[in-house]
Amino acid sequence: MKHVLYGKCVKCGKTYEATPNLTTCECGGILDIVYDYDYIKSQLTKEKLAERRNNSMWRYRELLPVEDTTADTPLRVGWSPLYEADRLAAELGIKKLYVKDDGVNPTASLKDRASAMAVAKAREAGAKVIACSSTGNAASSLAGNAAAAGLKTYIFVPSRAPKGKVAQLMTFGATVISVQGSYEETFELSEAAIDKWGWYNRNAAINPYLSEGKKTVGLEIMEQLQWKAPDYIAISVGDGCTIAGLWKGLKDLYAIGFIDKLPRLISAQAAGCCPLNRAIAENKPWHPMEENTLADSIAVGVPRNADKALMAIRESNGLVVNVTDEEIMAAQKLLGRTCGVFGEPAGVAGSAGLKKLCEEGKIEKDATVVSVVTGNGLKDVANAIKACGEPISIPGRMDLLLEEFDKRGIVVE
Amino acid sequence: MKHVLYGKCVKCGKTYEATPNLTTCECGGILDIVYDYDYIKSQLTKEKLAERRNNSMWRYRELLPVEDTTADTPLRVGWSPLYEADRLAAELGIKKLYVKDDGVNPTASLKDRASAMAVAKAREAGAKVIACSSTGNAASSLAGNAAAAGLKTYIFVPSRAPKGKVAQLMTFGATVISVQGSYEETFELSEAAIDKWGWYNRNAAINPYLSEGKKTVGLEIMEQLQWKAPDYIAISVGDGCTIAGLWKGLKDLYAIGFIDKLPRLISAQAAGCCPLNRAIAENKPWHPMEENTLADSIAVGVPRNADKALMAIRESNGLVVNVTDEEIMAAQKLLGRTCGVFGEPAGVAGSAGLKKLCEEGKIEKDATVVSVVTGNGLKDVANAIKACGEPISIPGRMDLLLEEFDKRGIVVE
Repeated sequence: MKHVLYGKCVKCGKTYEATPNLTTCECGGILDIVYDYDYIKSQLTKEKLAERRNNSMWRYRELLPVEDTTADTPLRVGWSPLYEADRLAAELGIKKLYVKDDGVNPTASLKDRASAMAVAKAREAGAKVIACSSTGNAASSLAGNAAAAGLKTYIFVPSRAPKGKVAQLMTFGATVISVQGSYEETFELSEAAIDKWGWYNRNAAINPYLSEGKKTVGLEIMEQLQWKAPDYIAISVGDGCTIAGLWKGLKDLYAIGFIDKLPRLISAQAAGCCPLNRAIAENKPWHPMEENTLADSIAVGVPRNADKALMAIRESNGLVVNVTDEEIMAAQKLLGRTCGVFGEPAGVAGSAGLKKLCEEGKIEKDATVVSVVTGNGLKDVANAIKACGEPISIPGRMDLLLEEFDKRGIVVE
Repeated sequence: MKHVLYGKCVKCGKTYEATPNLTTCECGGILDIVYDYDYIKSQLTKEKLAERRNNSMWRYRELLPVEDTTADTPLRVGWSPLYEADRLAAELGIKKLYVKDDGVNPTASLKDRASAMAVAKAREAGAKVIACSSTGNAASSLAGNAAAAGLKTYIFVPSRAPKGKVAQLMTFGATVISVQGSYEETFELSEAAIDKWGWYNRNAAINPYLSEGKKTVGLEIMEQLQWKAPDYIAISVGDGCTIAGLWKGLKDLYAIGFIDKLPRLISAQAAGCCPLNRAIAENKPWHPMEENTLADSIAVGVPRNADKALMAIRESNGLVVNVTDEEIMAAQKLLGRTCGVFGEPAGVAGSAGLKKLCEEGKIEKDATVVSVVTGNGLKDVANAIKACGEPISIPGRMDLLLEEFDKRGIVVE
């Protein structure tokens, strides 16, 4: 990989050759993939990109840590739509809002970006089996992307994982271990098993390539905005890998001169589980928290990628905001009603956070904001129904319909 | 619309001016939109299409019944991936198989294509409200596409509609009436309400434009195959609108010389509800059937678009195949395991049918086949779990993991 220099520990700075099965630093720190931006600049231009017909994350090959000879992964991951959300912007009282719907990825979440990268690197490593622990989406995306590539998967999920995600895993033919315990216990068991059997490791805070997959969401947002950086990008935060990946993508583009300013990140966590945001707000090291939220994908009491995430929020002069389950559910309905986008609870936490910040007057009225929806609401129907209520239920008779409309004060236009 | 001649009744041949709120013929027959193919040929070339960056169904504007001035609808519908499914082809014993995953549409089903068209035509008609009845997917797609466009919706679903679809509807802010009865009773109530209040009608067998939206799946398949028509296209059939739309798209392309042969259609219905396939198999008029299948989207005992669907199957010299619920569930797992594609029960019926025909020796071994997956498995998680089983559930301990692997005969590679 001519464009990749090495993996560098974010804690101690030690560097490692960028072999396909790179994990963490011997000091325990997480590695960051460091690029030769001068070389990349000599290879990639905006015009070249604009010509490309590859509507997947692999259109950004020059910025991704794979060999030239490594094939695109089979499922079409990325290049999700960026919608202009004018009605929602008006409701929030900001100038311009875009919603990036990553729920239309093949397994219906942003995590497909990391899992596609895991599959690409596992192939480079000659691995036949990939494993991970996950609150659900990393798992289902790995299972799907690996199945399409003919690789076997072992997946560890906490028993609270929503049924939709478990159904995906089982359908994709993964061997699924549902751990009766927290995400932390799930993670520990997966690490022990990976150690024992030598499987390719897709745990996002261990394998430094996965953030590089996730960063493509940032690359796309900028290309879709014709390289005009917005003022803010709001996103939900659990383990910390996604916001760290997003930030990496933005910094890459800044380094190669494709954008001339960096947006501020808005880190949205659940009020019931916000160790990273608390660390920022109190300007202290992070400490574990309970996992008290219905937003399962971001219910991470012991964030595995705290270092990179905190660095990203701080470097971007970011804002942190914690949202209650009620605020998350309200954001689900708000996005659905105004944008036709149905996000899962964790997926809309960024939008819920943005709404809250707008109400608190913390976002300038002339700001341009991007809100990333990280997963599809169909992943967690039980909670969506809690949020949105039940339909009118009647036998097929017009008189009963009129009666119900009357009772509910529905005035037909 | 210079490229549209008129709407023509498929029963009596009477023609109607193509106004935006066209419904059925006075004889009760369904209308077909008839184009001026010479004019279209003068406007559209393969090269022109290849240049286009519009990765949605609206890239085929010259073949769609909308005014030049009508805007693309807001959600990004269509241009779903067509995957080469080599491992599945090998398992089925055919030369080449492609899987078209329409479950990645914005509301996760092929019906988005028809609903986007409904929204476009409702706007042309100046309507502010759209209504429909649906087994679920037409409903959720209408609710989503209309919400994104700022239109109000009234939606009628049978009470058996899966929770995932209902959650979508409610989230998109539709007024939802769940009818305690069959699809037929649901349909009748929706028609009565549409009559009463004059809402824009999105019932696919009434509004002739909707098939024109659905046909884009056929246009895309052909463009994605570089205009080399496959031997067969397999698809699930309920109301009949989708297979009729697919066929219309193929015929359009043949008429303007973009393809030089027409594929044979494979019409897959549920064994417990196959009035159209029965009519073909027995070469008799169709008769209503019970709705006995878990594949809710194709559980249509009184198909509303029987005429167009039967015509499509016959004209294409098509094959019919009925699949049991067990065969449908097996196809869910097969597609998941070999392709990383998770389809809902009705969505994989086409693949289940193809598998059955292959086993019966009815598909030539050197055939090239496209199988359309019409909806995402996340729409109906309850049935997916029935199909795929439950994960291994243990506390987070290595000894218990080893014990379980042993018990289940899982040999780790």
